[in-house]
Amino acid sequence: MKCKRCKAPAQVELRQHNAGFCRSCFIFYFQRQVERAIAKERMFTPDEAVLVAVSGGKDSLGLWDVLIALGYRTTGLHLSLGIGEYSDLSTAKTVAFATQRDLPLITVSLADEGLAVPDITRLTRRPACSACGTMKRHYFDQLAIDRGFPVVATGHNLDDEAARLLGNVLHWQMEHLARQQPVLEPTHARFVRKVKPLYRCSEYEAAVYAFFRGIDYIVDECPNAAGATQLVYKDMLNRLEAVSPGSKLIFVQEFLSTARPALTPEDREPPQTCAACERPSYGALCSFCRLVRETQTRRERRRAAERA
Amino acid sequence: MKCKRCKAPAQVELRQHNAGFCRSCFIFYFQRQVERAIAKERMFTPDEAVLVAVSGGKDSLGLWDVLIALGYRTTGLHLSLGIGEYSDLSTAKTVAFATQRDLPLITVSLADEGLAVPDITRLTRRPACSACGTMKRHYFDQLAIDRGFPVVATGHNLDDEAARLLGNVLHWQMEHLARQQPVLEPTHARFVRKVKPLYRCSEYEAAVYAFFRGIDYIVDECPNAAGATQLVYKDMLNRLEAVSPGSKLIFVQEFLSTARPALTPEDREPPQTCAACERPSYGALCSFCRLVRETQTRRERRRAAERA
Repeated sequence: MKCKRCKAPAQVELRQHNAGFCRSCFIFYFQRQVERAIAKERMFTPDEAVLVAVSGGKDSLGLWDVLIALGYRTTGLHLSLGIGEYSDLSTAKTVAFATQRDLPLITVSLADEGLAVPDITRLTRRPACSACGTMKRHYFDQLAIDRGFPVVATGHNLDDEAARLLGNVLHWQMEHLARQQPVLEPTHARFVRKVKPLYRCSEYEAAVYAFFRGIDYIVDECPNAAGATQLVYKDMLNRLEAVSPGSKLIFVQEFLSTARPALTPEDREPPQTCAACERPSYGALCSFCRLVRETQTRRERRRAAERA
Repeated sequence: MKCKRCKAPAQVELRQHNAGFCRSCFIFYFQRQVERAIAKERMFTPDEAVLVAVSGGKDSLGLWDVLIALGYRTTGLHLSLGIGEYSDLSTAKTVAFATQRDLPLITVSLADEGLAVPDITRLTRRPACSACGTMKRHYFDQLAIDRGFPVVATGHNLDDEAARLLGNVLHWQMEHLARQQPVLEPTHARFVRKVKPLYRCSEYEAAVYAFFRGIDYIVDECPNAAGATQLVYKDMLNRLEAVSPGSKLIFVQEFLSTARPALTPEDREPPQTCAACERPSYGALCSFCRLVRETQTRRERRRAAERA
């Protein structure tokens, strides 16, 4: 197979596009895909400072690399989750990436805040992935607002989006379906725009990009992901993709263009305001403040019990 | 495991209901499931004569068996598709089932009409499953109207419905999603009501029912089904069901109760009328009449070429 662009021998084959690329043309193709997604979905302009949420994995570091190459003004934001060696290595890879390239990076350690994911899980018995999601959503908005960024970009790829869509569809989670978009505009002064510039790039493409660009990323999955339903959905979709290449892209694209507008005549915000942080909430407190209070209360009770 | 109803040793385990049944209680359970679906979805009343479309497989013969047991007035309708030995055996099993139980059965041979599925496929190059579907839809309506049946019942089970729903969702086929219901009311004087009383019964349950009732059915799949995408969808859903029993039922149920009403504000009929049969159509001819004409024209051309 030859490179679609320059006719040199292809080094990567993309079955869903029925095309092959050499190394340098693949990098060009991948960056252009991201650039087009940003422009077509109006994610952000070159004037806007972008906060890039980076975990240390191939997707988010690859995204940051692309945004730099495309000339955007970026700052990295890394949330160190406190999940043992996995988080230590994630943080190390992220810091090394930023240092080598002389890029600005904000790092927040949940352990320093008394909110390491394993602690929350142990104290509140909340599932780890749920607690982790609540932390990320809160700190992404909080840091962006504190530092004056209008937009947060995350490294969710096509496989992530397709698996999430499949999960939402299998349970017909209408509220979640309504919010599944590559661009989520802020609906409140304490939220910022969230964008997913890799939403059309497959996990395979993101891995090839990171490899071709020599990005040193953490390969291990989060230990909490083992057995997650998300992996079952990804496996289901991978089987389909093997039989009929391009299925994931059609699934996500057609949802966005055809089904989502029909499904969601109105985007409703939570009706209440959090008494602690004044963000929209479904109860007296928002999910973040509720989780923080519960963690703190239970920790104090344990300490009191230990002292007694 | 013990039978949920009578505490005798269970002979079948239903993981999605976390329950086991002995032979006779399973038969009771299965028949009651069908009875409830008929009543809840208002499929038909005991006063209505039901035309049961029977292929000779476990689902349709099992359905007919249940309807007889529940006391409904039924007549079988078997369309012999002309697909070689597979169709010969299907017809033989269906005729034997009806004869042994002294049940009324209408048999139509597509070969006698000059419309055997392999002939249509060969002459028009239409995919076999598409041609077969067009034939079935036409003859089910036609025979029901000719013989005065207000309703046609088919043996589609939960696995069929879930796989079809998944296929429609993966491509976001909005028109198809709108029509995916256990009861389809006629929208034209030349159509009758179509109902699927087994839509909540899994393929496994239908197989167990046929086995426990000693029904002699054709086990082979249609040879045209090999490699069909439908089987990929079934495989995907079986993997999910293995990890999380009950997923198929939730997927179909929640679609019907939550998503379908939101997806389909209006049920549109084809805008034109077929010049040949006066049924609703998307073109000058309906899909059935178009396929019949094409088959006839091409057959005549071939014969003329052979004579020349």
